[in-house]
Amino acid sequence: MDYAQEALNGSVLAGARLIRLLEEGDPAGIEGLKKIYPHAGQAFMIGITGPPGAGKSTLVDRIITEFRGRGKKVGVIAIDPSSPFSGGAILGDRVRMQRHATDEGVFVRSMATRGHLGGLSRATFQAALVLDAMGYDIVLVETVGVGQDEVEIVDLAHTTAVVSLPGMGDDIQAMKAGILEIGDIFIVNKADRVGSDDVVRQLQVMLEMRDYSATNWTPPVLKTIASKSEGIIELVDAFLEHRDHLVSTGILDTRVEERELHFFKELVKEMAYEKINTAAGGAKKYAMLTEALKKRETDPYSAAETLMEHLKVDM
Amino acid sequence: MDYAQEALNGSVLAGARLIRLLEEGDPAGIEGLKKIYPHAGQAFMIGITGPPGAGKSTLVDRIITEFRGRGKKVGVIAIDPSSPFSGGAILGDRVRMQRHATDEGVFVRSMATRGHLGGLSRATFQAALVLDAMGYDIVLVETVGVGQDEVEIVDLAHTTAVVSLPGMGDDIQAMKAGILEIGDIFIVNKADRVGSDDVVRQLQVMLEMRDYSATNWTPPVLKTIASKSEGIIELVDAFLEHRDHLVSTGILDTRVEERELHFFKELVKEMAYEKINTAAGGAKKYAMLTEALKKRETDPYSAAETLMEHLKVDM
Repeated sequence: MDYAQEALNGSVLAGARLIRLLEEGDPAGIEGLKKIYPHAGQAFMIGITGPPGAGKSTLVDRIITEFRGRGKKVGVIAIDPSSPFSGGAILGDRVRMQRHATDEGVFVRSMATRGHLGGLSRATFQAALVLDAMGYDIVLVETVGVGQDEVEIVDLAHTTAVVSLPGMGDDIQAMKAGILEIGDIFIVNKADRVGSDDVVRQLQVMLEMRDYSATNWTPPVLKTIASKSEGIIELVDAFLEHRDHLVSTGILDTRVEERELHFFKELVKEMAYEKINTAAGGAKKYAMLTEALKKRETDPYSAAETLMEHLKVDM
Repeated sequence: MDYAQEALNGSVLAGARLIRLLEEGDPAGIEGLKKIYPHAGQAFMIGITGPPGAGKSTLVDRIITEFRGRGKKVGVIAIDPSSPFSGGAILGDRVRMQRHATDEGVFVRSMATRGHLGGLSRATFQAALVLDAMGYDIVLVETVGVGQDEVEIVDLAHTTAVVSLPGMGDDIQAMKAGILEIGDIFIVNKADRVGSDDVVRQLQVMLEMRDYSATNWTPPVLKTIASKSEGIIELVDAFLEHRDHLVSTGILDTRVEERELHFFKELVKEMAYEKINTAAGGAKKYAMLTEALKKRETDPYSAAETLMEHLKVDM
C-alpha cells in the first residue's frame, strides 16, 4: 500500500502509519517522506510548552475547538515524556483530547521521548511534515517544558506559546534562564486562581528586559481559564497575529528554511557515516581504529582525522 | 600555555581553562583533549539525578566529604538547566558546594544546558575526560532528572543514583516510565519527613518488577538525610559495591567502550560533513542542493543521497 499517496488523499490511517514507519526508521517511511515533501510547507506550526500541571492539554483541546470553529484543520503532536519527574497525569490528559477523535478535521498523535538523543526532534519534525502535507492548516506541538529536547522541538514551531500558572512563585524567576527567550506568546492559565495578576506582572517585568530588536515583536501575556474556555478566542487571535507578523517581516521563510536545512545537514552527516562504514575498506579501517581506541593507543579526534584522510569528495 | 600539560601536572586553573576551550569548540581544546586522552579511563563516574527539591546538591556536598575522608580526589560536574521549570534554587545550591572550594582535592564545574542538541552531553563527556585524566578518582555528574538530555548525560556514568523524596505522591508512579530503568541505586533523601517509608516501599515494589538478568544487580533503596549527613557512609559504600560489581562482571569495560565509540562515531559524522562542505566542488554542490530544497524542487533525503554519490571512500 502506498501510504504516502493515501495520506495525501486524506487517509488518517495511512498518515498515522507513515509517521510510525518514519519513527521506526523504516526505508518505506523515507520513500514516503520524499513523496509528501513537495506538498508540505503550508501549515502554521504552533509550539505549546510549560510545566506539568499548567493545564496544557486542556488548553490544547480548547485551541483545537476554536480553530475548528474557524474552519481550520488541526494536527496535534503531543510529546509524552518518558522522564519521570514531569508529572504523572500526562496520559490521562491525553484522553481528554479524545473528544475530537470523531472529528475528521483533527489528527492527534502522541510521541514518546524514549530513544536516542536527537531522535525525538527528528521524529517530531517528520511527523509535522506529514501532517503539513496532509493539509492540516494548524500543527500544534505540545511539550512539557523541562529539558533541552523540548526547547529543540519548540524550535520547529513558527510560534511558541509558553504556559505558566499562578502559584509558581520563585519558579517564574527561573524562567529567565531559558524559556523567556523562546516564547512569542505567554499564557497564564488557571487565571481564576489567586495570584494570577502577580504572575502576569512578573512576566511583563521580565519581558521588558528582553531585546526585541531582531524580531520587532513584543510577546503578549494573556490570561486563560482553559477549563471554562475563557480567553481562548483572544489566544487564537494572538497566534494568528504573530503568524501575520512573521509573514510580513519575512521571518517565517527564514525560520522554515533554517529548520529544513538543519534537517538536511543531519541527514548528510549520517549518510556519510554510513557510507564510510559500508565501504569495504572503510569498514575495515573503522574496525581497526575502534580497536586502537579501546586500547587507548589513539584518541577519538585523531582516529576520526585518520578516517577522513581516506574520504574523497569527487565532483 | 600548554593547558593540557599543566592540567596533567595538577593545575586546576589549566583544567578549567581546557574544559572551557572544549565547550567553545576551540581547536586548542581539541589538541588538548588528544594529549590528555591516554591518561583518562581511571575515574569512577557517578551520575546523580532526581527532581528539583530532592536535595541533590546537599547530597553531593556530603558525598564529596565522605569520599575526601576516604582519601579520594573528587571532580563534580553540575548541570545547571537553563530550562525554567526545574526549580529556581539551583544556582543557590551550587554555592553550598563552595565550602570545598579551598580543597585542592575537589574540582567543581557547572555547565549550562544552553546550546545545540547534543552539545551538552558532548561538553559533559569532554569535561569528565579532563577530570579523569587529571587524576580525580571520582567524577560526580549531577543533573536534574527531567529530560532526555539528562538521561543521556547519566549515560556517561558507570553508576547512576536516582534521588527521590517523601511526598512525591503519584509522581513516583510516573518514575516507572523512564528513570527506574537507569537507576543502579535509589536514594530517598529527606528521610526524616513523613512518608519516607512509603516511598521506599513503593520504589521496592516497582523495582521488583524490573528484569535484572542482564546485569545481575538489584538496586538498593537507601534512606538519607543529607542535611544531617545521615546515611552517607552507607551510600558511598553502595557506590563502591556497585563499582566492584561492574568491574567483576566486565560490564564496566563494555560501558566505557560503548560510550567512547559513540563519541568517536559522532566525530566521524561531523568531520565527514565538514569535509564535504569545505571541498571546492562539495561546497558548490551543497549550495545548489540547498537552493533546490528552498524551492522544494527536491527533498532532504534525495538531496543528501545526491551528495553521497560524490563521496568516495578510498582505502
